[in-house]
Amino acid sequence: MSARELVRHAARVEAALEALLAGSAGPDARLEEAMRYAVLGGGKRLRPTLVYATGEALGIAPERLDAVAAAVELIHAYSLVHDDLPAMDDDDLRRGRPTVHRAFDEATAILAGDALQTLAFEALAQSGEPRAARLIGALARASGRAGMAGGQALDLGAVGRLIDLDALIEIHRHKTGALITASVELPALLVLDDTDRTLTALRRFGAAIGLAFQIQDDVLDVTGDTEVIGKTQGADAERGKPTYPVLLGLDTAAARAQGLIVDACDALAPLGERAAPLSALARYMVDRDH
Amino acid sequence: MSARELVRHAARVEAALEALLAGSAGPDARLEEAMRYAVLGGGKRLRPTLVYATGEALGIAPERLDAVAAAVELIHAYSLVHDDLPAMDDDDLRRGRPTVHRAFDEATAILAGDALQTLAFEALAQSGEPRAARLIGALARASGRAGMAGGQALDLGAVGRLIDLDALIEIHRHKTGALITASVELPALLVLDDTDRTLTALRRFGAAIGLAFQIQDDVLDVTGDTEVIGKTQGADAERGKPTYPVLLGLDTAAARAQGLIVDACDALAPLGERAAPLSALARYMVDRDH
Repeated sequence: MSARELVRHAARVEAALEALLAGSAGPDARLEEAMRYAVLGGGKRLRPTLVYATGEALGIAPERLDAVAAAVELIHAYSLVHDDLPAMDDDDLRRGRPTVHRAFDEATAILAGDALQTLAFEALAQSGEPRAARLIGALARASGRAGMAGGQALDLGAVGRLIDLDALIEIHRHKTGALITASVELPALLVLDDTDRTLTALRRFGAAIGLAFQIQDDVLDVTGDTEVIGKTQGADAERGKPTYPVLLGLDTAAARAQGLIVDACDALAPLGERAAPLSALARYMVDRDH
Repeated sequence: MSARELVRHAARVEAALEALLAGSAGPDARLEEAMRYAVLGGGKRLRPTLVYATGEALGIAPERLDAVAAAVELIHAYSLVHDDLPAMDDDDLRRGRPTVHRAFDEATAILAGDALQTLAFEALAQSGEPRAARLIGALARASGRAGMAGGQALDLGAVGRLIDLDALIEIHRHKTGALITASVELPALLVLDDTDRTLTALRRFGAAIGLAFQIQDDVLDVTGDTEVIGKTQGADAERGKPTYPVLLGLDTAAARAQGLIVDACDALAPLGERAAPLSALARYMVDRDH
């Protein structure tokens, strides 16, 4: 995927998010402002980009994907707002700016996260897609107790404890992997049946890049620059969080991420040339420096 | 509505909630336990009872309403868990037991609330109802920034401030009224079109009982017994929260609640005898002592 395409996808979801936030606003101006701050504050928009790239691979028009792209990004944004709270990761900095509870207050951050989750499901519900409920079910499974929220709970339980590689993978398969997988699964669910082998291939791809992405995140936490990664460098180590570089060593961790990307691209073989943007995106996810 | 019917509806939604919580459990046992604690800890189940009573009025079989009843109760349960957090209302007691962040911890309470919201939408998405997306959209609007979450934000902003009756009604129309209205709107959306006058009548009914319910809650906060109401008596006054008894006087507030119930029952006139269980439930909502 070229840098130009990345920018185009990011601009596209930005417009979709702007429209969602502008529509049917609530009565509390401060809550609205906090929601906008949390969502429109930049970010790589990797998940929406995965949605659009999967759409390209399957011949789905981007206009049909705006609600899906916005929904996965809203779930991601809500999880960041709540993860940053003092009772959770207690982070002051996100995307180079104060976190929502720092810029506003803790109660507003809790409510803004809550309402962003709601808005994600509302966006899909009002998409007009005949299979909207199917996508909503998949997004709920990926983000709830058996997905992202469950992984975040596992992660909090592991802080300061010695865990092995399998346990760490189990955490990240839920915490970040499930939503990244959903970002390629949801567009596919618009057009493919449950038994379609392309759906299986895309899920395999999603699981591999999800794990690779998290390993790379851990690597950047060690090697990255606070200014470039937009959050406090070394924060994981300071909190006693188990990470891949700690368990595997830095070089092996980085090599593992690269190996997973090879697996991911292999999974796409049945899709042929149409999957080129997805493969390029997978490579970008581990070659990034932030 | 007879006490026996109330008990029957409550038992029915209890079973539906048990089944949802038992199905597709997540990897973190503590999170699962906190979710069960939050949801299965009793409560009046008023919203599910409204769902089933509306179903009776419209001739919808109760089996078709279990997902709807569970979904509104899950949204209600999630909101209680988050509202009780130290950064919000900072409550130690709920339904006569320690609140979730007291029984577990703050991070677990945040995640449990998050995952309960997700489960509400998942329940509707997997209901198999052809109009599931329509109900999900309505539930999202009722519970998000333009509904319950927006009302909670307004409410927090009003603590310790002098506000007038209109502003107080505006808070409660969102904070509690929207979800109570949704409890009669959602079952209707299964079978009625947008332009159906019965739908309008049910929404009017929902709005009136929603406000009456909140006024009665405020009245009970002044007159009730901590042991009977299951939360700390006088907590609103202590926090400097504006309430109806403060603005109207206790007797006028109680009379206002009764008057709203008369309006609510008037709204049901077009439904005739079939609406008797709904009318009885409305009266119960202001005659209750907890």
